Amino acid sequence: MNKIYLDHAATTPVAPEVFKAMEPYLTQFYGNPSSIYSIAQKAAMAVSEAREKVAALIGADDEREIIFTSGGTEADNLAIKGAAMALQNKGKHIITSKIEHHAVLHTCEYLEKYLGFDITYLDVDDEGFVSPESVAEAIREDTILVTIMMANNEIGTIEPIKEIGEIVEKHDIYFHTDAVQAVGQIPVDVNELKVDLLSLSAHKFNGPKGVGALYIRKGTRIVPQISGGAQERKRRAGTENVPGIVGLGKAAEIAGEKLESKAEEVSRLRDKLIQGIEEKINEVVLNGPRGKDRLPNNVNFCFRYVEGESILLNLDMLGIAASSGSACTSGSLDPSHVLLAIGRPHETAHGSLRLTLGLDNTEEDIDYLLEVLPGIIQKLRDMSPLYEG
Amino acid sequence: MNKIYLDHAATTPVAPEVFKAMEPYLTQFYGNPSSIYSIAQKAAMAVSEAREKVAALIGADDEREIIFTSGGTEADNLAIKGAAMALQNKGKHIITSKIEHHAVLHTCEYLEKYLGFDITYLDVDDEGFVSPESVAEAIREDTILVTIMMANNEIGTIEPIKEIGEIVEKHDIYFHTDAVQAVGQIPVDVNELKVDLLSLSAHKFNGPKGVGALYIRKGTRIVPQISGGAQERKRRAGTENVPGIVGLGKAAEIAGEKLESKAEEVSRLRDKLIQGIEEKINEVVLNGPRGKDRLPNNVNFCFRYVEGESILLNLDMLGIAASSGSACTSGSLDPSHVLLAIGRPHETAHGSLRLTLGLDNTEEDIDYLLEVLPGIIQKLRDMSPLYEG
Repeated sequence: MNKIYLDHAATTPVAPEVFKAMEPYLTQFYGNPSSIYSIAQKAAMAVSEAREKVAALIGADDEREIIFTSGGTEADNLAIKGAAMALQNKGKHIITSKIEHHAVLHTCEYLEKYLGFDITYLDVDDEGFVSPESVAEAIREDTILVTIMMANNEIGTIEPIKEIGEIVEKHDIYFHTDAVQAVGQIPVDVNELKVDLLSLSAHKFNGPKGVGALYIRKGTRIVPQISGGAQERKRRAGTENVPGIVGLGKAAEIAGEKLESKAEEVSRLRDKLIQGIEEKINEVVLNGPRGKDRLPNNVNFCFRYVEGESILLNLDMLGIAASSGSACTSGSLDPSHVLLAIGRPHETAHGSLRLTLGLDNTEEDIDYLLEVLPGIIQKLRDMSPLYEG
Repeated sequence: MNKIYLDHAATTPVAPEVFKAMEPYLTQFYGNPSSIYSIAQKAAMAVSEAREKVAALIGADDEREIIFTSGGTEADNLAIKGAAMALQNKGKHIITSKIEHHAVLHTCEYLEKYLGFDITYLDVDDEGFVSPESVAEAIREDTILVTIMMANNEIGTIEPIKEIGEIVEKHDIYFHTDAVQAVGQIPVDVNELKVDLLSLSAHKFNGPKGVGALYIRKGTRIVPQISGGAQERKRRAGTENVPGIVGLGKAAEIAGEKLESKAEEVSRLRDKLIQGIEEKINEVVLNGPRGKDRLPNNVNFCFRYVEGESILLNLDMLGIAASSGSACTSGSLDPSHVLLAIGRPHETAHGSLRLTLGLDNTEEDIDYLLEVLPGIIQKLRDMSPLYEG
């Protein structure tokens, strides 16, 4: 089993306090929150408290603006399809970027294919930034939605959401941000960012898998994408995942309390890791920016002449869990669409290693990685026909 | 808190063995099943085992025909919207019944409103049965899907799915059944029923909330409704809810083992309850059929001159949890669409009480209910201006 876990962008361990909060709703208070008797009302109250905690973490004015979903992907789908279907009589143009998560990109493709939408996929610069000016230039008469991620899941670029929000605000357009990688890592305030819709996922910040939320600013029109019962103020049907929602609430509460200290500690380890790799291994390229515009927990390198998957397998044998990009596309042989978008050539885009940090990582974890990684890279390069030492 | 729980159709307690199976995936094996390192592969294997267990419970030939969802409602949405969008070039007509769950009815309305589908809502008889002949008569050149529930959630009617399957099979049409209330209560075999698509939900048979599955027969075309990563063979994106899926698998395993003994014991209590109510209280009408065509765990009565909600509040004060119909519409003042469809007049349709049994119910629970219910009904009738004793 893995002793050192460096893939927190893929998923995180459930915090012990989160599990403790969930447990009674798996063992005792099993009522259906839609029912009126006591055991059910106990569950309904727990859902309501969780909603307040999630609202507090992202600065929402009203907890009724939080809609629980089965995760970040469903939240992205609900935001984009829901807004598109609500506003399609006004226009059928959506602006997004080339480096969004597939939950956004494939949802946009669905709208192109099945509902006749026209999508503009904005370029990014070589560090992965979307320029606010490019958003302004792309806005048309028939634009109804702009969806730009808050932070990139592969290379950690934190996008200028506030600046984009100020541009979008001047038009009668909805603004969505996929904040799945940002919430719990950096401060997120829906009013400061001027977003109408924001997606988040519990398991990215020490909550359970299978639950997330969509922030829907009051007055924002959304066509529900899961039809049925009257749950979530008729915006998302289905019996509430009470233990999951309680877990998300607790994770949000803890994330809010630890936000500053976690970001500080984790970014220190991040910078040590970046510096160590650059010092010890040659022909490496850091993907994404440095400093405050990079997620505190993200490190992503290309190692020339080496396949990402081979590095991972070697690290796994030493008990280290890492990633070659997004967990959602692993198993795929395509190079990362994010690395291609920032201008890495095909052969380099195959050789990336993503190391993402969390609360459980220690100085020793980083030291150990820096001790073993140079040897692994050297061994793999020695086997590569392209490498000439 | 409620001492006697008689609302198992709304939700059920998580079985202790189910919680025990889930726990390690909440506390230890947190890896993302899409990743390649050991801790993630542990999670991937658990998901795979759960898939086999669910397949076994419903007689699916291949576990790859099982797609995990966030619950029964999402499964219904995926089946109906997914098939509709895949086949819309062939035709835009769907056949369903008037007594389906809102997860089906509102999904059909979504297709009418946003995708120009034409839906036939079949009548049912006074016990809630859909006649196979009415399905045959409703089939048109442009019919692409028939969706009829396996068992009704309010009145327990078990529909003639096998007979309908035989009719649908003769045409090039998909057949979906919402089996959320049936799976875990009665034998369900997708091949015997000749269904292409079947929805189920874990929390209806002592599994956790927030997880369900859609059976998709091999070769059946479905447009994914949650777009994103490549999970679930590209049919349902989003990081897998590993603990929830493991819980569903365990619940399916237990349900399979206990199916016969549970149905026998629970239907004995059901019949005692029905007989007791009819003996002790006058002016009552049983909703739904008697005997083997009724779900073993379902009792549903109309009490003339009395509001269902008032009965519930009185029962709750005595520690008994029950329902006036579907949990998904509670809070709504509309009479039940199911009771209206079987011909109950508006005023009677308001006065129903649903009692649904589970493994945790005892003979004493039934005795206690039969002891207190007549007094509650009499008290409420005495307060009613319509009742003349």
